[in-house]
Amino acid sequence: MEEFVIKTENLYEGKIVNLKIETVELPNKKYSKREIVEHPGGVGVVPITEDGKVVLVKQFRIATGKTLIEIPAGKLEPNEEPKETAIRELKEETGYSTENIKFLKEFYVSPGYCTEKINVFLATDLVAGDQNLDENEFLEVLELPLEQAYEKIETGEITDAKTIIGITFAMLEKGFNE
Amino acid sequence: MEEFVIKTENLYEGKIVNLKIETVELPNKKYSKREIVEHPGGVGVVPITEDGKVVLVKQFRIATGKTLIEIPAGKLEPNEEPKETAIRELKEETGYSTENIKFLKEFYVSPGYCTEKINVFLATDLVAGDQNLDENEFLEVLELPLEQAYEKIETGEITDAKTIIGITFAMLEKGFNE
Repeated sequence: MEEFVIKTENLYEGKIVNLKIETVELPNKKYSKREIVEHPGGVGVVPITEDGKVVLVKQFRIATGKTLIEIPAGKLEPNEEPKETAIRELKEETGYSTENIKFLKEFYVSPGYCTEKINVFLATDLVAGDQNLDENEFLEVLELPLEQAYEKIETGEITDAKTIIGITFAMLEKGFNE
Repeated sequence: MEEFVIKTENLYEGKIVNLKIETVELPNKKYSKREIVEHPGGVGVVPITEDGKVVLVKQFRIATGKTLIEIPAGKLEPNEEPKETAIRELKEETGYSTENIKFLKEFYVSPGYCTEKINVFLATDLVAGDQNLDENEFLEVLELPLEQAYEKIETGEITDAKTIIGITFAMLEKGFNE
């Protein structure tokens, strides 16, 4: 069932994504073109405070035209391990530091055309400190009991893939029936 | 916290995605540029057979360089309701027809730069029939007990966001403890 890349046309190289058109040879030996959005990959972190709250960020997302509630997240920098990215982004966006980071899940956001893979981690033993946002980053930190955050998935108030996956598996991790 | 679009530069219009650079006015009144991947949105379907199996598709995804196991899925055609897309794609990719489609969850795949929103449905009362694949579509249909599919999420063998979300919420829907 495999496809093979015959030719790559680089259409755009940007800060967040690159766009390429790949000519592929199909299993039936015919050629076809595939639009590929290249992304370095990212992380999401489900940070849980000592009293069982999850630390979330609210930010306006121009691609959706809405303010979304998400887990802290960011993209991988060159040569950075996902775990390091998770620790760095958690600190930058929420001020919390930790060394206690546990892998939860990894997934492709939309494998039909996009290379982005997100690693989601669970972070505990949080130590409060100062945020360190990028110059053009505006967000509000929000702490909610994990169960309340999960309810926002059920009601459709949380609509971000990494946040749905992170919170749901953090809940499953500790058992829904505790 | 909102941002406002000041200028839009259309860089590419394709079959699956468009690429735009938006100049936005930030909350601090400064300007910044945002790379936006525009996608019409898609659906995923968790089709459950009478004997409790979930119908999955295996296909090679050039963006990941791998063959992935996914729920049947596809993108919205112009003026198509997500429910119609779900029924159409289920039939095209697996041969199964149904009118019994229930909304499970909707999510943005990567709201930092991408407009794609996926609606995931649960499909039951399946009637077997013939597949009707697109000319350049090659996939293998696979039926697994729902619990076995969920195990493949736990082991990391299933790594597609819509498939993780669809199967997990289909499991939660029927109760993990049945």
